[in-house]
Amino acid sequence: MTQQAINVTIWNEYRHEKLNPKVGEIYPQGMHAAIAEGLNVQGKVRFATLDEPEHGLTEEVLNDTDVLIWWGHLAHHEVSDEIVERVQQRVLHGMGLIVLHSGHFSKIFKKLMGTGCDLKWREADEKERIWIVNPAHPIAAGLGEYFELPKEEMYGEHFDIPQPDELVMVSWFEGGEVFRSGCCFTRGSGKVFYFRPGHETYPTYRDANVRKVIDNAVKWAAPVGREYPKYGHAQPLEEIKAK
Amino acid sequence: MTQQAINVTIWNEYRHEKLNPKVGEIYPQGMHAAIAEGLNVQGKVRFATLDEPEHGLTEEVLNDTDVLIWWGHLAHHEVSDEIVERVQQRVLHGMGLIVLHSGHFSKIFKKLMGTGCDLKWREADEKERIWIVNPAHPIAAGLGEYFELPKEEMYGEHFDIPQPDELVMVSWFEGGEVFRSGCCFTRGSGKVFYFRPGHETYPTYRDANVRKVIDNAVKWAAPVGREYPKYGHAQPLEEIKAK
Amino acid sequence: MTQQAINVTIWNEYRHEKLNPKVGEIYPQGMHAAIAEGLNVQGKVRFATLDEPEHGLTEEVLNDTDVLIWWGHLAHHEVSDEIVERVQQRVLHGMGLIVLHSGHFSKIFKKLMGTGCDLKWREADEKERIWIVNPAHPIAAGLGEYFELPKEEMYGEHFDIPQPDELVMVSWFEGGEVFRSGCCFTRGSGKVFYFRPGHETYPTYRDANVRKVIDNAVKWAAPVGREYPKYGHAQPLEEIKAK
Amino acid sequence: MTQQAINVTIWNEYRHEKLNPKVGEIYPQGMHAAIAEGLNVQGKVRFATLDEPEHGLTEEVLNDTDVLIWWGHLAHHEVSDEIVERVQQRVLHGMGLIVLHSGHFSKIFKKLMGTGCDLKWREADEKERIWIVNPAHPIAAGLGEYFELPKEEMYGEHFDIPQPDELVMVSWFEGGEVFRSGCCFTRGSGKVFYFRPGHETYPTYRDANVRKVIDNAVKWAAPVGREYPKYGHAQPLEEIKAK
Repeated sequence: MTQQAINVTIWNEYRHEKLNPKVGEIYPQGMHAAIAEGLNVQGKVRFATLDEPEHGLTEEVLNDTDVLIWWGHLAHHEVSDEIVERVQQRVLHGMGLIVLHSGHFSKIFKKLMGTGCDLKWREADEKERIWIVNPAHPIAAGLGEYFELPKEEMYGEHFDIPQPDELVMVSWFEGGEVFRSGCCFTRGSGKVFYFRPGHETYPTYRDANVRKVIDNAVKWAAPVGREYPKYGHAQPLEEIKAK
Repeated sequence: MTQQAINVTIWNEYRHEKLNPKVGEIYPQGMHAAIAEGLNVQGKVRFATLDEPEHGLTEEVLNDTDVLIWWGHLAHHEVSDEIVERVQQRVLHGMGLIVLHSGHFSKIFKKLMGTGCDLKWREADEKERIWIVNPAHPIAAGLGEYFELPKEEMYGEHFDIPQPDELVMVSWFEGGEVFRSGCCFTRGSGKVFYFRPGHETYPTYRDANVRKVIDNAVKWAAPVGREYPKYGHAQPLEEIKAK
Repeated sequence: MTQQAINVTIWNEYRHEKLNPKVGEIYPQGMHAAIAEGLNVQGKVRFATLDEPEHGLTEEVLNDTDVLIWWGHLAHHEVSDEIVERVQQRVLHGMGLIVLHSGHFSKIFKKLMGTGCDLKWREADEKERIWIVNPAHPIAAGLGEYFELPKEEMYGEHFDIPQPDELVMVSWFEGGEVFRSGCCFTRGSGKVFYFRPGHETYPTYRDANVRKVIDNAVKWAAPVGREYPKYGHAQPLEEIKAK
Repeated sequence: MTQQAINVTIWNEYRHEKLNPKVGEIYPQGMHAAIAEGLNVQGKVRFATLDEPEHGLTEEVLNDTDVLIWWGHLAHHEVSDEIVERVQQRVLHGMGLIVLHSGHFSKIFKKLMGTGCDLKWREADEKERIWIVNPAHPIAAGLGEYFELPKEEMYGEHFDIPQPDELVMVSWFEGGEVFRSGCCFTRGSGKVFYFRPGHETYPTYRDANVRKVIDNAVKWAAPVGREYPKYGHAQPLEEIKAK
């Protein structure tokens, strides 16, 4: 495909970094900055955070965003329903959305999935090994058969999401669980990718493989250039015989 | 499978039948009564309608319902958000849901799909021919290669739903459109089937093939007997080594 | 669904049991006998083995089989292409097929999948924990969140199959791998279920959970009663205008 | 994505053009030449035809091919099994494959699908209207809601293929049938796209929309750059406790 300019907006709750010195040390400029460093896209890379007006997600910003990356955790309930609705509409109109880690419980992800999005979890500094189960998928480009994160939070099945259209990755956890860690969905004219890793107390977004996945996902999720479908009353295209 | 008792609740908006004499003539006891006549299940068949307290969908009724059938059109907005939430929770906990025709725009279907659920439509007394595209699916049991409805409302693509887990039927319309008319989804521990036909001004729910589909779908959507998954904090099942 | 009579044929290579005393001790009547003990179906349960004429899979036997269970390992290449073709045709015409463990490399599974069906493996007496990832699926009926096999052969990703239509189970292995262990496919008018466990040197087919899965799968895979589709030249159903 | 060089090989049976003057007039240089004109890729575009040695598909050519386009009809049986096996292996190792129209009955498509690949058909100069049912898919880029072919051969359901991983297009036919006309599959590390239109007696491969679809599909099907998975015996990645 032509190297298209993809405008990316990275949305971060941006609270842990300020509240928890351990997190602030790992991500002094915020997780969003670390995520941005891993991207290799032409186009604008913007940041938006919870405490900005409209959480940084004005109509103007969203309309100029091709792919939105979402990290939230503590404060899902503080995201206004109006902004969530706005983001959903943009996804349905073609904007890509990449939901990271604890974003599984964000309002926008739950709204797009239609399910509870709950899961098992544990913070125990355990090893995660992420296996590629769909080697033909563009999100797997450049990755080995698996990659490891030496310490991560555990997320375990059952993960209460609809069956993904394409399942790309499955995690193995030291403590005995598995998890569908890389999941593709389409919603309207937009694409959604859920990617599991990224607990705030680990330098996960500095990991080369994690960065590769997110960069691949941004390219996969970029909008397809075409007119939005026409819905509503439609004239017949063929003659209808009176009966 | 063992012939299990399946308790079915048929929810009907039940307004057209009272407001429009043409509809009242076709369905003098309401569409729900005509739908019930087509079921061949052991178990209770109950009715619930919009204008009853709690729309007839009390906790007690829902907890005793294995499969809920839903027909609404005029008054989707009059269905209370609280009841919609209650129905969603029951689906996620295992209750089957069959959404008929104009129910595509119901709050409960939109909430479970996460999309706009919009489509093209036209009322022109035109012929619909519904083709089976998945002959292995239990919802296709006993049906021919296709069946026809001599006059129906047209629904046309793009139908703004997530890609179905299983696509069972596709409609051909005289006026030139196609439509994914029989669509299976899972949501949490529950199953959802969308079935297109059933405009209120035609005797569609007296059609033998339509009835066969709905009866098959009830059996397909019946809950799987098992414990609800445990979500939340989880103890390790294996020893985690200190690092 | 009505309790239908399902005729099951269990095909077993039946060599390990005779060649390896350890296997013979676990399965003195053959693995097929142990598998049969776990079934709770009305209908005939038959056995067929490699060294019988036509491998026990005559036209007559297959035409009277609703679901065929397949276990093979050492001698895939000894199964005649003609019989494989016959089994494939029966699947396409509606017969269910359950492929167990090392059957992943059988001619019939590879032929129905269209892929190499290869995987990683290791015999190391290690623990397998099988997680349910689709709690709404009938093959998960009656099972807990996971079940364990204390010693099994490891099978690891990438498993070279097409993406399953429905993924029901994922395995965790002590040695660090994951595997898609319960996979549903449709082929023509028939259904196919692949189920991972069952290395010949362990009493896996005496395990209550394994038996429950196979019994559930038989019921899921049973043929849908309907006429086989008509293929080939077709007269128009509507008038075609000369142009 | 970066504009990558994609090497395309267009395989054509190339018999109709020489045997049937009507076809020869529409495609004087062969259908492959017309298909090539519609491509907008960097990289080599090669032709290969049935009557060349090894059908033009030598190891060297295939190893230098990123995406193979396949048109065959009369002479599927003349394609040697050895070459079919070679093409399958290349697909499983990552090469994209686009199967056009009557290629549904080619050995390679049947081998990759595992099903009969049969369908209904009729040559009656009838109108086909192809609807996009997945507006988020890259193969739909730049297309309207539907496009029409004024005269085409009819292909009707049931189309005996596995359920596509992604269904992009559905056809409406004047004579009353529907057809899943744009179907995506993955097989091993490779991607397969089936696209319905292209009967030899119509100038279908000169149609701008048809060309756009094929060009989009080439880009979608291009290999993902990564190492082929390792299969076979595997050492444990974690310690396995003796039991």
